Amino acid sequence: MSPVRGPKAKALVFDVFGTVVDWRGSLIREGRLLGRRKKLDVDWAAFADAWRAGYRPAMARVRSGELPWTKIDDLHRMILDGLLAKFGIRGLREEEIVHFNHAWHRLKPWPDAKTGLGKLRRRHVIATLSNGNVALLVNMAKSAGLPWDCILSAELVRHYKPDPETYLGAADLLGVRPGELMMVAAHKDDLHAARACGLQTAFVARAREYGPAAKPDVSRDPAFDVHARDFNDLARQLAR
Amino acid sequence: MSPVRGPKAKALVFDVFGTVVDWRGSLIREGRLLGRRKKLDVDWAAFADAWRAGYRPAMARVRSGELPWTKIDDLHRMILDGLLAKFGIRGLREEEIVHFNHAWHRLKPWPDAKTGLGKLRRRHVIATLSNGNVALLVNMAKSAGLPWDCILSAELVRHYKPDPETYLGAADLLGVRPGELMMVAAHKDDLHAARACGLQTAFVARAREYGPAAKPDVSRDPAFDVHARDFNDLARQLAR
Repeated sequence: MSPVRGPKAKALVFDVFGTVVDWRGSLIREGRLLGRRKKLDVDWAAFADAWRAGYRPAMARVRSGELPWTKIDDLHRMILDGLLAKFGIRGLREEEIVHFNHAWHRLKPWPDAKTGLGKLRRRHVIATLSNGNVALLVNMAKSAGLPWDCILSAELVRHYKPDPETYLGAADLLGVRPGELMMVAAHKDDLHAARACGLQTAFVARAREYGPAAKPDVSRDPAFDVHARDFNDLARQLAR
Repeated sequence: MSPVRGPKAKALVFDVFGTVVDWRGSLIREGRLLGRRKKLDVDWAAFADAWRAGYRPAMARVRSGELPWTKIDDLHRMILDGLLAKFGIRGLREEEIVHFNHAWHRLKPWPDAKTGLGKLRRRHVIATLSNGNVALLVNMAKSAGLPWDCILSAELVRHYKPDPETYLGAADLLGVRPGELMMVAAHKDDLHAARACGLQTAFVARAREYGPAAKPDVSRDPAFDVHARDFNDLARQLAR
């Protein structure tokens, strides 16, 4: 049971890393592929977690103005260069490092994502609203078959979430009022920031985002308009 | 026969009004619908031509800095308000004017556009690169079933074509070099401007863009990499 919602959302915007795609499982798989090819003995789960852990501090340097606007591809590469040294990975050619850095362009969707988006798309405009750069999101959509109506990214407003420019910029670009736009995410901080800008909010529980052992907070928060198990459940609830 | 081209284009960006969609035929149809409903006696072909003719001068006022950044939806509305007076159309309610202004969101594709894009999409990233605003292009794609990988618009760089920021901005957002990007358009000025930025170029002959009586210049220009009859022909040529 969701609380009574306001007017029907005309458009839905989706967080991507963790909400649409399983970054951790995908990076572990890509790491193992690289490891087999280059005979590397690396704990790829620890590597994936460390790569992702470097992401917020790197964006914080852009958000504070310490770094000029920098795309996620380039932030991922800065973090990766540090991790290759830290994990003792040597002997990769530049094009191998570029290919591994683009593992983020090849992240695999959660099992329900593609079918759920297909259903949601029949009644709503659906778009990404990710800190990932446009090229990353376009390549991911193409390789994973995600049926977005539009690719929106922090890159388009040169502000990273949770800066308000991202949420308000998405509404402006899609030609809807903030209250007609619904932010869909597996992360409560993202939704609280969207809600503060007047957007509707849908939480999607992704209990395995951080691996089988982690226990992220997927409890129901009454501040959000919808609490969904997955995208199929979200489509069911929004069709009511 | 096309001249020998450079490296395969990784991504194709498309002009939309006239190249992908038949703005003139679509506007005449929308005008007639409105006319029947409101019992108006108007030459809708002349009306469509006048609406389109107002477009370049309106953009020129933005490009020169006389007007601040203004979306095409708002430029179309400014022009429309003038034309309603000029054509003696009175008695429309505000929501009827808004709906008619959004006829540009509902333009119909040329007969080959959807199938041709479907073929091109298998081998290339395909995106719009239009002076139309993002919401207009998203709504058009959704209503016409155009399978874009990405919606790019002058709005994202706040410069109208043929300003170089539009072509170079598209390459930057798609993560390709200008020489890896191909501009597809039915308008030679658009292609010459793209070429001056280092893009590859494909001309598509749309002899009926300005109606059955007009004779636009669809002759082959050796400055362009490809000269195509339509999108199916373009797909055939790029598959070679």
